[in-house]
Amino acid sequence: MSEPQVMRSVVYPGTFDPITNGHSDLVARAAHLCDRVVVAVARDTAKQPTFDTEQRVSLARQVCADMPNVEVVDFGGLLVEFARRMEVHVIMRGLRAVSDFEYEFQLAGMNRRMAPDIETLFLTPAEQYAYISSSLVKEIARLGGDVSAFVAPAVNAALQERFG
Amino acid sequence: MSEPQVMRSVVYPGTFDPITNGHSDLVARAAHLCDRVVVAVARDTAKQPTFDTEQRVSLARQVCADMPNVEVVDFGGLLVEFARRMEVHVIMRGLRAVSDFEYEFQLAGMNRRMAPDIETLFLTPAEQYAYISSSLVKEIARLGGDVSAFVAPAVNAALQERFG
Amino acid sequence: MSEPQVMRSVVYPGTFDPITNGHSDLVARAAHLCDRVVVAVARDTAKQPTFDTEQRVSLARQVCADMPNVEVVDFGGLLVEFARRMEVHVIMRGLRAVSDFEYEFQLAGMNRRMAPDIETLFLTPAEQYAYISSSLVKEIARLGGDVSAFVAPAVNAALQERFG
Amino acid sequence: MSEPQVMRSVVYPGTFDPITNGHSDLVARAAHLCDRVVVAVARDTAKQPTFDTEQRVSLARQVCADMPNVEVVDFGGLLVEFARRMEVHVIMRGLRAVSDFEYEFQLAGMNRRMAPDIETLFLTPAEQYAYISSSLVKEIARLGGDVSAFVAPAVNAALQERFG
Amino acid sequence: MSEPQVMRSVVYPGTFDPITNGHSDLVARAAHLCDRVVVAVARDTAKQPTFDTEQRVSLARQVCADMPNVEVVDFGGLLVEFARRMEVHVIMRGLRAVSDFEYEFQLAGMNRRMAPDIETLFLTPAEQYAYISSSLVKEIARLGGDVSAFVAPAVNAALQERFG
Amino acid sequence: MSEPQVMRSVVYPGTFDPITNGHSDLVARAAHLCDRVVVAVARDTAKQPTFDTEQRVSLARQVCADMPNVEVVDFGGLLVEFARRMEVHVIMRGLRAVSDFEYEFQLAGMNRRMAPDIETLFLTPAEQYAYISSSLVKEIARLGGDVSAFVAPAVNAALQERFG
Repeated sequence: MSEPQVMRSVVYPGTFDPITNGHSDLVARAAHLCDRVVVAVARDTAKQPTFDTEQRVSLARQVCADMPNVEVVDFGGLLVEFARRMEVHVIMRGLRAVSDFEYEFQLAGMNRRMAPDIETLFLTPAEQYAYISSSLVKEIARLGGDVSAFVAPAVNAALQERFG
Repeated sequence: MSEPQVMRSVVYPGTFDPITNGHSDLVARAAHLCDRVVVAVARDTAKQPTFDTEQRVSLARQVCADMPNVEVVDFGGLLVEFARRMEVHVIMRGLRAVSDFEYEFQLAGMNRRMAPDIETLFLTPAEQYAYISSSLVKEIARLGGDVSAFVAPAVNAALQERFG
Repeated sequence: MSEPQVMRSVVYPGTFDPITNGHSDLVARAAHLCDRVVVAVARDTAKQPTFDTEQRVSLARQVCADMPNVEVVDFGGLLVEFARRMEVHVIMRGLRAVSDFEYEFQLAGMNRRMAPDIETLFLTPAEQYAYISSSLVKEIARLGGDVSAFVAPAVNAALQERFG
Repeated sequence: MSEPQVMRSVVYPGTFDPITNGHSDLVARAAHLCDRVVVAVARDTAKQPTFDTEQRVSLARQVCADMPNVEVVDFGGLLVEFARRMEVHVIMRGLRAVSDFEYEFQLAGMNRRMAPDIETLFLTPAEQYAYISSSLVKEIARLGGDVSAFVAPAVNAALQERFG
Repeated sequence: MSEPQVMRSVVYPGTFDPITNGHSDLVARAAHLCDRVVVAVARDTAKQPTFDTEQRVSLARQVCADMPNVEVVDFGGLLVEFARRMEVHVIMRGLRAVSDFEYEFQLAGMNRRMAPDIETLFLTPAEQYAYISSSLVKEIARLGGDVSAFVAPAVNAALQERFG
Repeated sequence: MSEPQVMRSVVYPGTFDPITNGHSDLVARAAHLCDRVVVAVARDTAKQPTFDTEQRVSLARQVCADMPNVEVVDFGGLLVEFARRMEVHVIMRGLRAVSDFEYEFQLAGMNRRMAPDIETLFLTPAEQYAYISSSLVKEIARLGGDVSAFVAPAVNAALQERFG
């Protein structure tokens, strides 16, 4: 019997606008499970991002600097085609809440239709990160609140510069 | 850097009372992703199962007979301790619906508290299996309905014998 | 073009243990929409009902006595086969809450698999009935509470006799 | 007893930006149940549509061309008033997911308050269409993906022209 | 033992764009429970409000004019810091639906992280207000519908003036 | 204007079979907010409890021993009538998840119908307790797992004695 190799690499896609402690908790978990984790920062986003692609990639790289089997890249176009180009057959996504679940379920279903060879796996963050979302973090930073409990220092500094 | 090995084996626990096409779809997906899939049939169940442990294991083995990297075993006691005894650090669970999600989320949270070294991953079944549950299948069989679209022939035969 | 006739009759299945004002609101709505509404009282129930089939049918008949195009019958076996025997091709179900929705969705999916010619339609009760369930009504009656706002007088009397 | 006629016609409202296979599955189901189905394309939409009203109506008409008892019209203003002008007393809506359900529930409640004579019925699409939404289809087309499995050829061509 | 005083005052924050009968039902309930209710109208809103801060405050004041222990004020910046400035340690929020619940849960979790001394309590509106939301009310008014069942006369007049 | 006194006392009802750290976190929060918290242990429970009423009350008393404004009592019959006998007009309930929410919403709606003078308020537990339920704790204890992270020492001892 030939050995499945597919699980050794996963791609973890997102907007990461900016990367939070909830995201990095999931990256660390994936990095513990797999040989290679590709954090894939989407260039195309549904709404205008707060940070441009370069900044979002740079912040994610700083946050993941200590994880040797994690690489951060940006991508455009369809996620499933990016995954194929990267020779990765597993997409990893975080699930925090029921509303996440529904959207993710729909997305996973359509991705499976377009690329049956690519599987989507879901992971849950540690409980202390269940409440954190990039949009709430930005909202709090915009209103002058302290977000140092929710993001890494480099991200906090970038948020201060943007909204301070 | 040492290579993570943890993802190579996963345990897929459940009551499997009896195993349905939805379950076996998930087993096949996991078997495609990982080197080794342990289908773990729970001896201890919240309510009285329709089939005894021996039957549930036997039916699951027949259904998974063609998947060389899948083994079916029964277990008692805590799942996380069983996983450790099997030297598996990843639990795989299927997600079909919001109600699944909430229960699974709670379970994964408590398991993580008891065994932080063990991760729970979630997978979604193919869309045509999203509606299938063991309890609905048994209810239909009990009422004389045809469940051959939802379970393998061996399971169908066992249901006929039980309810026919 | 031949005229579709299927919507003229609907079957509204349930345990009706006992029928509440929420149920009868839906029956009245269906009776306003269709030529014929069959209220189908399930003889086979997942758990031991509080009222036997005869009582459940009798209470439903009293509650629906003023609706000339409504008939109340009991049924055994599969709902979709009962519907076919009644020459009805539409099943009507009430939706009050998300948890209803998930179960109903699953049930409708399996019924569609077994009987593609039968469609399931969903209706929502009037807002003042959104909170009422047979099990909560029985729980309140059992504890000596007044349920006259939630059920018809005949049902209230039957609950008093049972729990009073 | 006079015969209810109300169920013979239904209105199926939406933005249809553009019509997908999920929408047309529901139209076909409704057309099988009722004498007349009015697909009502909303001129007023919460956000800027991708296709203008004329295009959305034209695509829906092409998709429904083979269903003789289906008509496609655009409408402005309140849905319940449009339904009355069309002499239709039943609104039909599709339900795919919990998030749909909540919004639809709220909308149906407010419509019932404004027009107690008009009922909202819900239908579920075939399981293979449960994942399809117009916005995901457009997102995939925009990113250069193949959406021919999700929409009719005419709609695919229109998406190619728009995003190709 | 010293007596807790914290529950005597609550802040009820929101956009109130405009205040509906659902909001005022909750204000009245809170005013019945507590010595002092601060209706806090957010100056900073995620999207462009239909009414400016002055109008939103003015309409809320008119609606709450008969409740002597209710005051209406606008606020900017972080809610938890506003609550502290007002010497209020309880935030009150309404819950109508599952989707509310998820967002509120996340918000309450982040607020608790930033201000552990401030508690969030949830209240449900009367059932007849469960369907009302400011955005649906504005949508109906914009389309020329009658919203007098959902808002107070002063709010209705303001909506007419805006959309009439 | 007379001062509302109602919020000074709250009743926190439940089965408490047995009391967990999630429950006691909520009791402590309520005790911080209100002058008097009545932890009300239901004698009548939907299913056979693991611990009898006396034990459930005794364990709750031990857990709440350090909170001077908390009393633990058992009650039978309807909760709203018990609340009135205790001269308490506020019921407090914990919300952890969407499934909680739906059931609680329904219960609060029926209680409001039976006793419009009594209000139900909802509180969320600290994030580290979001996963804990009495039934999961008992399940783990029954299977020989360590539940000392989820319950107080006295409760842990009682669980050991029962399942050890």
